[in-house]
Amino acid sequence: MLDFKYYAPTKVIFGKDTEQETGALAKEFGATKVLVHYGGNSAKKSGLLDRVCHSLEEAGLPYVTLGGVVPNPRLSLVHQGMELVKKEGVDFLLAVGGGSVIDSCKAIGYGIANHCDPWVFYSKQATAKGCLPVAAVLTIAAAGSEMSDSSVITNEDGWLKRGYSSDYSRCKFAIMNPELTYTLPAYQTASGCVDIMMHTMERYFSHEAHAELSSRFCESLIHTVMHNAQILKEQPKDYHARAEVMWASSLSHNGLTGCGMTGDWASHQIEHELGGMFDVAHGAGLAAIWGSWARYVYQENVTRFVQFATRVMDIPEDLGSPEEIALAGIRAMEDFYHSIDMPTSLTELGIHPTEAQIRELSEKCVFFGQRTVGNFKVLKAEDVQAIYKAAL
Amino acid sequence: MLDFKYYAPTKVIFGKDTEQETGALAKEFGATKVLVHYGGNSAKKSGLLDRVCHSLEEAGLPYVTLGGVVPNPRLSLVHQGMELVKKEGVDFLLAVGGGSVIDSCKAIGYGIANHCDPWVFYSKQATAKGCLPVAAVLTIAAAGSEMSDSSVITNEDGWLKRGYSSDYSRCKFAIMNPELTYTLPAYQTASGCVDIMMHTMERYFSHEAHAELSSRFCESLIHTVMHNAQILKEQPKDYHARAEVMWASSLSHNGLTGCGMTGDWASHQIEHELGGMFDVAHGAGLAAIWGSWARYVYQENVTRFVQFATRVMDIPEDLGSPEEIALAGIRAMEDFYHSIDMPTSLTELGIHPTEAQIRELSEKCVFFGQRTVGNFKVLKAEDVQAIYKAAL
Repeated sequence: MLDFKYYAPTKVIFGKDTEQETGALAKEFGATKVLVHYGGNSAKKSGLLDRVCHSLEEAGLPYVTLGGVVPNPRLSLVHQGMELVKKEGVDFLLAVGGGSVIDSCKAIGYGIANHCDPWVFYSKQATAKGCLPVAAVLTIAAAGSEMSDSSVITNEDGWLKRGYSSDYSRCKFAIMNPELTYTLPAYQTASGCVDIMMHTMERYFSHEAHAELSSRFCESLIHTVMHNAQILKEQPKDYHARAEVMWASSLSHNGLTGCGMTGDWASHQIEHELGGMFDVAHGAGLAAIWGSWARYVYQENVTRFVQFATRVMDIPEDLGSPEEIALAGIRAMEDFYHSIDMPTSLTELGIHPTEAQIRELSEKCVFFGQRTVGNFKVLKAEDVQAIYKAAL
Repeated sequence: MLDFKYYAPTKVIFGKDTEQETGALAKEFGATKVLVHYGGNSAKKSGLLDRVCHSLEEAGLPYVTLGGVVPNPRLSLVHQGMELVKKEGVDFLLAVGGGSVIDSCKAIGYGIANHCDPWVFYSKQATAKGCLPVAAVLTIAAAGSEMSDSSVITNEDGWLKRGYSSDYSRCKFAIMNPELTYTLPAYQTASGCVDIMMHTMERYFSHEAHAELSSRFCESLIHTVMHNAQILKEQPKDYHARAEVMWASSLSHNGLTGCGMTGDWASHQIEHELGGMFDVAHGAGLAAIWGSWARYVYQENVTRFVQFATRVMDIPEDLGSPEEIALAGIRAMEDFYHSIDMPTSLTELGIHPTEAQIRELSEKCVFFGQRTVGNFKVLKAEDVQAIYKAAL
């Protein structure tokens, strides 16, 4: 088992009607003026925004609101948020939404606490020394940003999508009411499930042979999300299935499933470029890429892919050679993605990058030769290009 | 899935030589003067205490030391610790040891922060409003106190062993170096493994049918501890096995494995009385009791015991009737306990309570009729008495 640090201090309040506790919790964590940050109109229409604001009022907390966060959240809105926070003297950032809204809050928080354009952190030019306190009322189970140290922002100037991680940005509290996810469209629900699974699979595909508890937790989590994603395809208002997926989303990305292992993360980085250029749903993009990544890298450690195939995908241990079992496991995961109407190719994802675009995506992915991606197999631009092509 | 709160803010530093980070971490969490609390001479002899104190010195942190904590830690030493903390102006409590030392720190912390005898909390006469910051350098994997909200203290006046739980007492950080557990005697290692498994099994035996992720995590954790307990019986210095057990000890009792379920906890409460009266090793006491508890209660929810039998104990699903499968699962766990030289009866535990002592234990366990114990099956004094007798 590799040495590790684990720090997931977010207080989770999980269950029905828990959004009513928002004000009291914000107060407990020292808020005196709150920015309520959200996305489109659904939080307004559903009445959620009103309930959250009412809870802040009941706690005697003044607030301002800022909507308009879009998937693949934009740096320009982060700058707008920073202006508002400064003007209004806000000291606590409350995201009402999913990963995009939380990430937008985290970026605002970095900018304010460090008195700079937060893009310097996302573009790896500087290291953050703090972040304004952030919390979340979660409405989409997917990104896991409500407990993670991560956030991802897209800079419209060049359509660069970049992540930044630090413990400073971990949410103080996260309110998780599974009912708030009832109205998510089927495509977004399924895409979220892929994202959740992939946060664990990125950690699971590691060469560390001695990480039994973490590996078993990974297998448990992937099993659980697969099972409940299929329930939700038929019954989008199944409370327990929504609850399993929501809790899995947080645990998948708070660090727990990777303790003692080195994660891979190539699929995420390969997908980030797609998200930057084509604005596709993140989970769907991951599903479209994963099988091609897996077939490109599995020979680096067939044993691990065999464990995945037999323990997660229920491939019989006596199916054939280790290679055959490994490949059957990859195919079975692609079959699962299809079963929840997720793509396993870029064509199915609905995008058709040209040869030139694939070169551009690959070069951006490796920061024009300044980095490699992945650990399970270390990938350079030409490897990334081969994976994009295999995924066409 | 039942509504739940989850809050496990302890920063975990896991791996070799991590005790060298103690001083820097204590400083990060605001310490200006530290009480280094420990047990017997092993921390001194091994040089660990010196290394920890050296790390504090390097961070420029003054400290005082107080040894002498015994298993089933005593209230009298807690009082002594409080006097020392007041006299020396200590504002940070560092446990160098296992659950007993951490719990002694927690009790001192409650006493100081609330300006009272902390026994009022353990005897349920009052609710704590705070706790001095506590942290741990862990040397025994068992109690899970390094991440849990719990602590257990024994009052020599009446030999009452009582627990108290609140988030205030959660450790700020926990340093976990598996090598520090290499020298534990085999009996203590095995007893610790039982304690770890039981923290999860107490949560697992629940009537909540919709807690898939939590249930799978429980099964993963129990599997992992069983596997590695058997390795440690043969190879006490197997780093990876020590690491799995140490990490499992923390995750078993930090709340994770019980999210969305109601725990039982009867076995713990039944054992606490044994520990108070006979001063037995806690894990061994739990092993001695569990099978008798399980056979007394399994008919309340045979389905759950069948899931335990088939998923954890690998009992074949076609073995027979659900009752037969459930009972086979219980027997298999007792066989496992025997395989690591743990007792499954009070006789094997080495104690022989008289009829009168069993009555006294049972009455104390239910606070002389003021409470029941357990949730899977709610137990009164006569039920507890029947379980003690079945365990003779």
